Amino acid sequence: MAVADPSSITTLERTLKLVGDRWSILIIRAALRGLRRFGEYQADLGIARPVLTNRLRRLVDGGVMAKEQYQQPPPRYEYRLTPAGVALSPALVALVQWGEHHMHHGDNDVVLVHAPCGTELEQGFWCRQCETTFAPAAVRATTRAKS
Amino acid sequence: MAVADPSSITTLERTLKLVGDRWSILIIRAALRGLRRFGEYQADLGIARPVLTNRLRRLVDGGVMAKEQYQQPPPRYEYRLTPAGVALSPALVALVQWGEHHMHHGDNDVVLVHAPCGTELEQGFWCRQCETTFAPAAVRATTRAKS
Repeated sequence: MAVADPSSITTLERTLKLVGDRWSILIIRAALRGLRRFGEYQADLGIARPVLTNRLRRLVDGGVMAKEQYQQPPPRYEYRLTPAGVALSPALVALVQWGEHHMHHGDNDVVLVHAPCGTELEQGFWCRQCETTFAPAAVRATTRAKS
Repeated sequence: MAVADPSSITTLERTLKLVGDRWSILIIRAALRGLRRFGEYQADLGIARPVLTNRLRRLVDGGVMAKEQYQQPPPRYEYRLTPAGVALSPALVALVQWGEHHMHHGDNDVVLVHAPCGTELEQGFWCRQCETTFAPAAVRATTRAKS
């Protein structure tokens, strides 16, 4: 994989700063499970109120979540994943799988499966043009002007 | 995606600690491009010697890279990705793609493509049993005793 473009590294670094900490990841995963409200996140994750407030604000500012009022008065808000937030799931899945296979030393592994059948999922690179899957060695980086 | 198991979060956190910083990612990507020797990494990445030494040691300790002597005297070492290191590429690709699509605000996007044809790659979840791709909503986490 040839991705030497320094701008892509800066982008990657900003990505990790936004979503690469424990609580941000937990909140995103909870939102992927369907949680919406401040109190739901708090109860589900056992997270301190100021930390949750801080992370939700950062995720909203970063475009990963959207804040919407659902009641007033008093005003109450829901926090939903934006399409960008939902699009994080392949990265989360890949990191969880890698960690479980290569870093985890407990008695049990967490295994990510295809829910309907329980088979461990696989992740792959797919080329729509060639209609083929391929290995990391065939990944190349290129730049393209913004449309 | 339901991955509420706390042990999987701890594993994920350790994973990010090991490979979630700028220089570690740059080194892994350089190694995926075929770089091996200390001097090659140094020249290619423009990284300070003590930082490179520190990161290589951490990646070796974490099982992502292996250190092998290729000359003596004086002793000189190569640093290659282990199979665990190579297995990081789906996560790196997913993070790079997400960042370029959702975080990058420059004039040019970095696009990851299938090298032989230049088509932008797609990443998907695949079930070998059902012979189907599927969406993040159909991902479930389960635990399995270590074999």
